[in-house]
Amino acid sequence: MSDRILLKHGAGGRAMRALIEQTFVQGAPGELPPGSVGLDAMDDGAAVRLGDRWLVVTADSHVVSPLFFPGGDIGRLAVSGTVNDLAMMGATEVVGLTCAVIVEEGFSRDTLERVVQSMRAASREARASIVTGDTKVMGRGEIDGLVISTAGVALTDRVVRDAGLHPGDRIVVTGTIGDHGMAVMSLRHDLGLEGDLASDVAPIGQLVALVLGRHGDAVHAMKDPTRGGVASALHEMAGKSGVGVVLDEASLPVRDEVRAAAELVGIDPLYIANEGKAILGVRADAVDAVVATLREHPLGRRAAAIGTCVVERQGTLVLDTGFGRRLVAELEGEPLPRIC
Amino acid sequence: MSDRILLKHGAGGRAMRALIEQTFVQGAPGELPPGSVGLDAMDDGAAVRLGDRWLVVTADSHVVSPLFFPGGDIGRLAVSGTVNDLAMMGATEVVGLTCAVIVEEGFSRDTLERVVQSMRAASREARASIVTGDTKVMGRGEIDGLVISTAGVALTDRVVRDAGLHPGDRIVVTGTIGDHGMAVMSLRHDLGLEGDLASDVAPIGQLVALVLGRHGDAVHAMKDPTRGGVASALHEMAGKSGVGVVLDEASLPVRDEVRAAAELVGIDPLYIANEGKAILGVRADAVDAVVATLREHPLGRRAAAIGTCVVERQGTLVLDTGFGRRLVAELEGEPLPRIC
Repeated sequence: MSDRILLKHGAGGRAMRALIEQTFVQGAPGELPPGSVGLDAMDDGAAVRLGDRWLVVTADSHVVSPLFFPGGDIGRLAVSGTVNDLAMMGATEVVGLTCAVIVEEGFSRDTLERVVQSMRAASREARASIVTGDTKVMGRGEIDGLVISTAGVALTDRVVRDAGLHPGDRIVVTGTIGDHGMAVMSLRHDLGLEGDLASDVAPIGQLVALVLGRHGDAVHAMKDPTRGGVASALHEMAGKSGVGVVLDEASLPVRDEVRAAAELVGIDPLYIANEGKAILGVRADAVDAVVATLREHPLGRRAAAIGTCVVERQGTLVLDTGFGRRLVAELEGEPLPRIC
Repeated sequence: MSDRILLKHGAGGRAMRALIEQTFVQGAPGELPPGSVGLDAMDDGAAVRLGDRWLVVTADSHVVSPLFFPGGDIGRLAVSGTVNDLAMMGATEVVGLTCAVIVEEGFSRDTLERVVQSMRAASREARASIVTGDTKVMGRGEIDGLVISTAGVALTDRVVRDAGLHPGDRIVVTGTIGDHGMAVMSLRHDLGLEGDLASDVAPIGQLVALVLGRHGDAVHAMKDPTRGGVASALHEMAGKSGVGVVLDEASLPVRDEVRAAAELVGIDPLYIANEGKAILGVRADAVDAVVATLREHPLGRRAAAIGTCVVERQGTLVLDTGFGRRLVAELEGEPLPRIC
């Protein structure tokens, strides 16, 4: 074990999980009432009983580089990331978002203004108000431009966990995969594909509310496939739920331009970050209805059933290529730092 | 107006307030239900109606340098800062805290562990659990060591505002002033006084709960005098409340070693940051009882009535030196960057 923090410790994969388990969760006081979802659950957020409902709380820092990328920017990312984490716990009735910015001395006020405008637009789209904030300035060279930390608070009658997959459940993704990571990667690697690629960054709380409103009981688990992509999210869900997951490669919705760019850099789209997508574990008899409902919404047009939960090979992910099956390895972490 | 962000924009004074007003608050959608405390109030946090109670939400980033200082560290500061902001809104029943850390690649895991241990100890002391978090790593040179963003959620039956001062109210401070800022400043300026100086950083939610429990109706306003010290907090409270404040210099509780160090660097302790103190606006007939209650608690031993609200000179702060009166100027911002 390294005695220094490495980039992989922030990359959403196995190394980050180990760091969090060893440093943040171990020994943390377990003071929450029984039934709550706390730090030790390592879910998308926490859930605390409040009267006959649940209060869900989530927090994120956003360090994406560059600040503006095709399809979005750090402001839209911050709002979407937080709203989506809340939604992944089943909490789509947002009480409020918080926004703490840290800015480098000398940063352009115009650029800051543009980011704030984008946050506002995203929060209107998400029907989630930014209710309070904080501003800190660090000296030149002490922070790279701008970092935004957001937290969110929302209410729900039922908490959906990432650990709720059952054998037989179908895995649904709400749209094409790899769009966000590939758009940022293309900019950073100077692939010159920015014209074709665009991040999917969007607040999907309303999409999730729609599907939970109609088929709530059939949705057993949710997680958003951000850092480390669909593969990392499914590894975590499968491991926590004690199931294996078999993915059907032919069903994976991937844009042609993302597939082409991913081949160029040699990374499987399954490992590439998304910022406007969810993975759902759905009771098998409801999967067609769930996919049909998702496709009614502009953010769910390309929703698809992509796999099935099995009893065998707990915690692992298997890809059925049509010609055979292969194990999808668990990454140490997201291939690209500062993807979100 | 500068088109670049300057250090003073994060320094808790007039420049920061102007930036927040111009960039974050202006044009923000006012979607909260009537009676709520939102972004435009620029209070210590937000308050949203939840059934027959109020949910208070607050957020902060902590960028203090160095990470460890006499009397505390960034972990204790992060927990205390958030708990105290909640308490300043009257919300001492904490539902949960969130913790998002951003770490520089190459940072020592041992040091991170020490900071996390300190957060845990402070959260136990504050009776406030850290319920969820986030971890990001930035590359070497992209961030100076470690930054912690925290948010807090708490419940209260009554929201206390920073704008609630009335003419005739007495101003109470819960203890000695300038301890935190002077301890950090001494380290940074190599004054060699670290042996004598110590930060006051502490979660004062329980102290506030004690006084609100006994004298709630008599407490008209609260604010914690962090960046920019007692002077900045009182300028803000006086301006929002439409009163003037006259301080009695002889009543200001200042440790001898803080006074000596402040004279050495030429800064008035009124402008120096505190991290375990509150300023209360108290109905005149209750002030002795409030001070007596505060002094029962270990964190309120040196509580004192230090001033009075007047009708004249709205928004200004006047110091009665015993020989005469002088205006206490409003600073552009805290004299020392990264004080918290």
